[in-house]
Amino acid sequence: MEEYLARIGPADEAAMRAATERQLALTKPAGSLGVLEDLSIRVAGMTASCPPAVPSPAAVTVFAADHGVHAQGVSPWPQEVTAAMLANFAAGGAAVNAFAANNRVDVRVVDVGVASDVAELDIVHAKVRPGTRDLSEEKALSPEEVVAAVAVGFELAEKLLRDGYRCLLTGDMGIANTTASAALIATFTGATAEEVTGRGTGIDDATLAHKTEVVAAALRLHDVPASDPQGALSAYGGLEHAALAGYILGAAANHVPVILDGVIAGAAALVAQAFHPAAIDYCVAGHRSAEPGHAIALKTLGLQPLVDLDLRLGEGTGAVLAYPILTCAVRALAEMATFESAGIASGDGA
Amino acid sequence: MEEYLARIGPADEAAMRAATERQLALTKPAGSLGVLEDLSIRVAGMTASCPPAVPSPAAVTVFAADHGVHAQGVSPWPQEVTAAMLANFAAGGAAVNAFAANNRVDVRVVDVGVASDVAELDIVHAKVRPGTRDLSEEKALSPEEVVAAVAVGFELAEKLLRDGYRCLLTGDMGIANTTASAALIATFTGATAEEVTGRGTGIDDATLAHKTEVVAAALRLHDVPASDPQGALSAYGGLEHAALAGYILGAAANHVPVILDGVIAGAAALVAQAFHPAAIDYCVAGHRSAEPGHAIALKTLGLQPLVDLDLRLGEGTGAVLAYPILTCAVRALAEMATFESAGIASGDGA
Repeated sequence: MEEYLARIGPADEAAMRAATERQLALTKPAGSLGVLEDLSIRVAGMTASCPPAVPSPAAVTVFAADHGVHAQGVSPWPQEVTAAMLANFAAGGAAVNAFAANNRVDVRVVDVGVASDVAELDIVHAKVRPGTRDLSEEKALSPEEVVAAVAVGFELAEKLLRDGYRCLLTGDMGIANTTASAALIATFTGATAEEVTGRGTGIDDATLAHKTEVVAAALRLHDVPASDPQGALSAYGGLEHAALAGYILGAAANHVPVILDGVIAGAAALVAQAFHPAAIDYCVAGHRSAEPGHAIALKTLGLQPLVDLDLRLGEGTGAVLAYPILTCAVRALAEMATFESAGIASGDGA
Repeated sequence: MEEYLARIGPADEAAMRAATERQLALTKPAGSLGVLEDLSIRVAGMTASCPPAVPSPAAVTVFAADHGVHAQGVSPWPQEVTAAMLANFAAGGAAVNAFAANNRVDVRVVDVGVASDVAELDIVHAKVRPGTRDLSEEKALSPEEVVAAVAVGFELAEKLLRDGYRCLLTGDMGIANTTASAALIATFTGATAEEVTGRGTGIDDATLAHKTEVVAAALRLHDVPASDPQGALSAYGGLEHAALAGYILGAAANHVPVILDGVIAGAAALVAQAFHPAAIDYCVAGHRSAEPGHAIALKTLGLQPLVDLDLRLGEGTGAVLAYPILTCAVRALAEMATFESAGIASGDGA
């Protein structure tokens, strides 16, 4: 971990100042591109360049894993759905495939801890263990397993960047992963189990009450302080959360933007923030999930979501939807004429 | 007008029912794509097909015109900026050019009523008159000018569709056009001048108070009922609002989606709705502008904006930002595997 963290530093202030000034010179009223102006300034800071290059090509990586807490009945979906959806991703039949094809984003799928054997699928095989242990009864992961899963994400980020990608998007798949997310978000935000536990991809009131009690009991059992990201990953998992945290740290260490998907990514980003606060300088919140813990996570992360359309699917769909907004923001900064170059009088002078 | 309106009918109910059923069969929890599911169902209804084809290619048409009310000091920008920005659009230097290039949308620029001579620009020349009359003193347009400007928009929509475009986006340019928009929105929503008048692309408190009084006085002067769209266009203009209303009616008559940009398009859509309520079945709200009248217009239109990022530029930027969200929604409906085809157990059965 230490060698990863040593490579992370804050966004470049000089590039952000230059981008802020450039925004004022472009042929539009000051501030009229709203959130996109701030976004373009942030990308300048991430990449230490003004104007920054368009962050393209992009890859969305779907980190997949299973959760021992599934045994507690926190989801209506059989655990085997994780593996079945991996086959669906590999065949191009999932929502993230349709969105990614539309938005020119490449899809990578990684088995970092699926319970079933998916060796025959044409995906990245990096299984640390076949699912976590049940977080409601014991630590989900050993310290060594945490480090191994974080390394899967970090190393994959580095490989994608070596392959030429200039924007990384997070994706995830894992039945019951909103339960582990809730525990992580509660740990790092101080929110209660009631505040952060939601219906995931769809559960009834009775299951929600039970799921909330499972999260509350796990928080009491493990009682991990917010200053201990490795301890939190060990207590609650999941393997995909650990890999996502590593992936975010990998993007930050290499000064490229990483677009976060929904609540799973938000939980992982809180872990990354606990590892190194400056990692969040490289994060863009793709969307706000309908899952209640996500808004709480985003508030602690200090990130404003780009898309807010009641999505609660995961897979990276929210991040992929947001990707063209990011590239539009950067292209406006890079490609627009200035008042001077276009020979237009500025509103200030009228 | 009558021949245009006779060709408009409501969205196809059978296709919408088929799309609703298909959404339930796709490999995702029911409802987990949120607003995008509804959007895909609406496009099925617009195009009377399920699954609908991806609405591509797309064109954003920037209708440009000037406003006589500019003489009242409602904007800090000189009127000549309209023409200067047309040159900027033609040269590819504006925000809408950057966004459109990013999102594979073609840009068309139309002079439907710019005050200056822009004959030398490589744009569509359809000037009905050089700017409206001052709406605070007299009717902005004659009845004949209204019909001519509506026809510009309708005929251009038809030409784009003949040229193979399958999605139309609205754009606009015209210094002082938020003033005419405010008057139109007040007319069709019943809101007050205070509620619908905003800072446009950026005015100070004193100018806002003056602009609001100009709108209030114009509403008292002309007093057009909500049932009279031609009268409202005649009273307030602008030429681009009339053309946009025609463009929306043209999309509706040809059963293709039209993505509305911000407050100018919202005002024009209210005009189109008054001409024929079913026209709104073909409208998608691209974004919610920071201009206060826009949210009021969207409420009366019954449309939910896809993007809400504090943009207040116009030009079509909000519509272009929303376009990939629309195509993602349609591609998910069209391309995703079903639980049956992918051999995945549905959550309902667990």
